[in-house]
Amino acid sequence: MISRVIGFEKGFRLSDGNHFETYEVMLPKLNKFDLVVKNLASSINPVDTKLRQSGKGTSQPHVLGFDSVGIVTHLGSDVKNIEIGDRVLFAGTTKRFGSYSESQVVDSRIVAKLSSGIPTDEAAAMPLTFITAYEMLFEKMGLFPKENQNNGTILIINGAGGVGSVATQLAKWAGLTVIATASRKESKEWSKRMGADHIIDHHKDLTKQLKKIGYSSLPYILILHSTDRYFEEMSELLEPFGHLGSIVESNKDVDLAKLKNKSGSFDWEYMFAKTDYDFNIASQGKILELLVQLMQEQKIQSTLTKIIPGFSPEVFYQAHQLVEEDKMIGKLVVHY
Amino acid sequence: MISRVIGFEKGFRLSDGNHFETYEVMLPKLNKFDLVVKNLASSINPVDTKLRQSGKGTSQPHVLGFDSVGIVTHLGSDVKNIEIGDRVLFAGTTKRFGSYSESQVVDSRIVAKLSSGIPTDEAAAMPLTFITAYEMLFEKMGLFPKENQNNGTILIINGAGGVGSVATQLAKWAGLTVIATASRKESKEWSKRMGADHIIDHHKDLTKQLKKIGYSSLPYILILHSTDRYFEEMSELLEPFGHLGSIVESNKDVDLAKLKNKSGSFDWEYMFAKTDYDFNIASQGKILELLVQLMQEQKIQSTLTKIIPGFSPEVFYQAHQLVEEDKMIGKLVVHY
Repeated sequence: MISRVIGFEKGFRLSDGNHFETYEVMLPKLNKFDLVVKNLASSINPVDTKLRQSGKGTSQPHVLGFDSVGIVTHLGSDVKNIEIGDRVLFAGTTKRFGSYSESQVVDSRIVAKLSSGIPTDEAAAMPLTFITAYEMLFEKMGLFPKENQNNGTILIINGAGGVGSVATQLAKWAGLTVIATASRKESKEWSKRMGADHIIDHHKDLTKQLKKIGYSSLPYILILHSTDRYFEEMSELLEPFGHLGSIVESNKDVDLAKLKNKSGSFDWEYMFAKTDYDFNIASQGKILELLVQLMQEQKIQSTLTKIIPGFSPEVFYQAHQLVEEDKMIGKLVVHY
Repeated sequence: MISRVIGFEKGFRLSDGNHFETYEVMLPKLNKFDLVVKNLASSINPVDTKLRQSGKGTSQPHVLGFDSVGIVTHLGSDVKNIEIGDRVLFAGTTKRFGSYSESQVVDSRIVAKLSSGIPTDEAAAMPLTFITAYEMLFEKMGLFPKENQNNGTILIINGAGGVGSVATQLAKWAGLTVIATASRKESKEWSKRMGADHIIDHHKDLTKQLKKIGYSSLPYILILHSTDRYFEEMSELLEPFGHLGSIVESNKDVDLAKLKNKSGSFDWEYMFAKTDYDFNIASQGKILELLVQLMQEQKIQSTLTKIIPGFSPEVFYQAHQLVEEDKMIGKLVVHY
């Protein structure tokens, strides 16, 4: 089976011009748990722009896109609970062609069915960020994944970004108090809408602002922007036995001993770890089922803020420009 | 109230001679949760030899000793469930005079009553190592503190030491498979007695030996000897979403990014964190109640291997020599 895809051959910077191209690729033969999805929409994540620059970590030609809603068109022999014609959502894996494609092959165990009340674009904005926030809070920081069953306060550095917006909502759902950092007026308003109890400005002294609102230490801290910049200050702010989590790779060695005297933990979350290592991958399908349920019950709202229609190299070039400016609030979806 | 204590004024090395001395000190006035204990026996931990060398982190004169069994002689106004004459056990805190003392003041919330079937010296060997192992497994690595309610395998580096011996037993109790490292024949036999399922030699290539017994990765790894030496190899061996724990301070910065792509966690455990920060200290009394229950039910055995009788500078100098040689198997108790 052949699919049209938008990809590139070598990593490139946007300032080098548009090197996205249209290709026709042969989709791989289905494994028993696989299915084929005809994509309807996908969203752009910061990891897309990183992989576009590095050109590493994906198949050739590089076809990015790790958030999709589409219609199932073919089923592997052992696919359970999903049928042809179902509308599904998934984030996917860097090991295969991504969602900048008319059709793609995906493991059914990392897919969930969408219920009819949830619009395609709103759903397409969510899988990667929801899985990331869920795994961090409930599989790494030790919180309990039930509504209002947790206590304590979480500080989310860069609360208005994609993961931050979902982490804010999910932490609130779980029962935590949320302090989010944001800087621009629009980001602050957005973060408030996502449910943050307090907003502080990451361009000013965080420790001082926290003290002003009554916090000298925190049991949960989530770094979603520059681990290198924040590690030391956050180590100081962490409560004994607390969790300091990050999704942003550190580029220098860190003085981990700073956390020792308070029995601190440092937790990494990287949502492709499960598919990269073929580790407990069916848990991601379950996480997306919870996402669908919580969207249906209007307990989690979509972070969609912008839709670009079309399916061409130009459309994805434009989408990458918007995401790479680093001023996006919420998520950008490309609607095919 | 005055107590005889064995202490020192400045940090010293054993090769400088015996600078332990006998002092008479005034015990502090009791806070409402405090009690006074007349010590019967205490055990020597590696942290004692570290603090003796550095002379830091304790009150003046430095009176060490963080494991005791004694008889309660005085009660603060709000002490619950403990009475004068009770035999109790506790680890204590570095913030006050330790257990190299005839009598000491301790917060009743970090104390548990001993049941009559458990001998004093066997109990005195246990508090610090049990609290450390418990907090690491159940409060840091996310295991569930119930008998046989957990799956997976833990690798314990230096399995035959004080904490390693208790961590082995507690991990087995919780339902894990335990791979312990040991090197000498006696250590290997000891570790087997503590319940280890597999013993590998930390003077040989650990990764190769693990492969030989069928393990290419592990969900739980506990470093009880040289974080600096083991961090890199253990980061490689950690399973996705796994926990790499340590109680041994790192002296150099570490490349934490090694754990990122597998969503790994690094967990520190330091048992004085709770009393240092006045954080959740009553949990330590509860942990010691579990210790007493598990010793009573013979589900945890004492790690006591050697008793030195007496209460003098010479006795503690000799005890420090034995512990500092780093060849101790199990625990040394000084019986007053």
